[in-house]
Amino acid sequence: MAICLFTDFGASDPYVGEVEAVLDARAPGVRVIRLLNDAPAFAVRAAAHLLAALATRIPAGQIVLGVVDPGVGTGRGAVALCAGGNWYVGPDNGLFSVIAARAERCEAWRLPAASADAAPSFHGRDVFAPVAAAIATGRFPEAGAARTARLDVRFGADDLPEVIYVDHYGNAWTGVRAAVVAPARRFEVAGRELPRARVFGEAPPGAPFWYENSSGLVEIAVSGGNAAWALGLEVGAPVGLR
Amino acid sequence: MAICLFTDFGASDPYVGEVEAVLDARAPGVRVIRLLNDAPAFAVRAAAHLLAALATRIPAGQIVLGVVDPGVGTGRGAVALCAGGNWYVGPDNGLFSVIAARAERCEAWRLPAASADAAPSFHGRDVFAPVAAAIATGRFPEAGAARTARLDVRFGADDLPEVIYVDHYGNAWTGVRAAVVAPARRFEVAGRELPRARVFGEAPPGAPFWYENSSGLVEIAVSGGNAAWALGLEVGAPVGLR
Amino acid sequence: MAICLFTDFGASDPYVGEVEAVLDARAPGVRVIRLLNDAPAFAVRAAAHLLAALATRIPAGQIVLGVVDPGVGTGRGAVALCAGGNWYVGPDNGLFSVIAARAERCEAWRLPAASADAAPSFHGRDVFAPVAAAIATGRFPEAGAARTARLDVRFGADDLPEVIYVDHYGNAWTGVRAAVVAPARRFEVAGRELPRARVFGEAPPGAPFWYENSSGLVEIAVSGGNAAWALGLEVGAPVGLR
Repeated sequence: MAICLFTDFGASDPYVGEVEAVLDARAPGVRVIRLLNDAPAFAVRAAAHLLAALATRIPAGQIVLGVVDPGVGTGRGAVALCAGGNWYVGPDNGLFSVIAARAERCEAWRLPAASADAAPSFHGRDVFAPVAAAIATGRFPEAGAARTARLDVRFGADDLPEVIYVDHYGNAWTGVRAAVVAPARRFEVAGRELPRARVFGEAPPGAPFWYENSSGLVEIAVSGGNAAWALGLEVGAPVGLR
Repeated sequence: MAICLFTDFGASDPYVGEVEAVLDARAPGVRVIRLLNDAPAFAVRAAAHLLAALATRIPAGQIVLGVVDPGVGTGRGAVALCAGGNWYVGPDNGLFSVIAARAERCEAWRLPAASADAAPSFHGRDVFAPVAAAIATGRFPEAGAARTARLDVRFGADDLPEVIYVDHYGNAWTGVRAAVVAPARRFEVAGRELPRARVFGEAPPGAPFWYENSSGLVEIAVSGGNAAWALGLEVGAPVGLR
Repeated sequence: MAICLFTDFGASDPYVGEVEAVLDARAPGVRVIRLLNDAPAFAVRAAAHLLAALATRIPAGQIVLGVVDPGVGTGRGAVALCAGGNWYVGPDNGLFSVIAARAERCEAWRLPAASADAAPSFHGRDVFAPVAAAIATGRFPEAGAARTARLDVRFGADDLPEVIYVDHYGNAWTGVRAAVVAPARRFEVAGRELPRARVFGEAPPGAPFWYENSSGLVEIAVSGGNAAWALGLEVGAPVGLR
């Protein structure tokens, strides 16, 4: 069991480290993993599908502290939920709603309003990290957390036929799970029909293709190249099954 | 208690990992936190104010290994100090001097000259990491460290009315502590007078504002935008209280 | 003892964190160090020399999980080896061959073919991480690993007179070990003859020079500047001893 950080805080800024310092003080000895520092910053729906996919391939039993939170400090709610063998703590803005909708069983708690000494712009450090530490050390739910039957914002369980993430190689992840797509199908992306390949080494150099990536999603790639540049893809670009 | 790394070593290079390998060998079981990998590389004064602000918001009891050290390998001194409940180890070039000047109580030790087998360009790994590990394991001061009454380079306790850091969202941190500024005051930045907002969600989209950031500093931001680009800000840009 | 990750997975993507989650589940309590996230992605020979140099300066006893693996999912072999006091796990594509050639003693095991549920594009998570965890917990070799007398791809022990890495300061590491070069010698790089300096602080500002870097390699640098930009250097650029 570890506390996994899934945020848009970036790898170059002090924010992730500040969260880790709080976790160290409140849950000493518990491993902290920087799962993703560069989740799509203003695209909560894309981030929700990305997290749902990653969660299927990491060992169960994690506590995920998730922050993609453009509404921090405003009236949006905060939530902790247990679904599919993992815990999730963060804003109730839809970020965990794809996971919740796909889980066989999901229990959720509304977190109390941030205390007065919490920084209004940094609930990751001052609100969510203490709750994640409480879960890790068996102190959750504490007084103040109230069971809730549903999340405030719900994106549903359906796949999202859009680019949801572009990695540093330029590979474009989509929100479509490959398991539901027949291998012979093609995807239309940026006006081109792309065939499927199994791995990079089997695709012709320079030619775009799609494949089932390591998180089970349809991913657009170019062997030996940068698909995002080649096809002009960014988060939100539509993809179509042909 | 953890060892917090505050350096300009970058997130993409092996330097931080090499420091961690030394810490693991000499202080096994002690958590290491990458607090900041991208401190301003040639702006020691800005880095000193940044570290002083961050130190107020992390749980006390940390050992901070701080390296912004353009003079590494030359005659500049090296220091370990205990101030405000934390330890600091690094070059005696002013980096810890704002913290020292603001602390109620500060004790400092001059570190002995680097040994012959230390790489002249990497005291972080070969000099400071062993000392941080010695502190973490109760073996400091060792023979060779001498108490000193004052640091060689001292920037003083005053605020610094300049941009000291630009984060990956484009928000510009200043060296001015917000607690000393009345909320109704405006800041003049790049020829514009900026009003205050409490959080991003309360500022009009696209309009620059200032707010008290999560480390207690005046920060220049644009809701839904990149303040550094919009206003042409980089480390060293002056800000004026109006 | 720690598990050191040497990969081209990048600091901004989820891949390193996914590897860490597997390691946490299978080797709880063992420290994991991100030694390098940005190894040269398609330059296995350069990466092999870089890793060989880094390995000489980290405390012995590490388990290095190394992934620079453009052929992942194709027929290339996988290997675990013990050399110079460290373990190495990864593709048998030459990445560990410089270390093997320079080691006084080296023992190697061929890893069995990836299981059907391993993602063909992510052996780092699904093949190499479990083996690294097995080594860390004393469960290696398990059934399936077979001793082998030689690696499939071997780059040999000789130095590589090329740029093998460019760090975020713009300093260009070469594959030449400085210990074999007389200090008075010059290096010809990009048509210029560069003198040696001991540290940055002793070189004239703005003038390119070479020095023995903290990993024992000849490195091309500019005091107060960016050598890679100034001289147009990237991985693969030749350097000549004069």
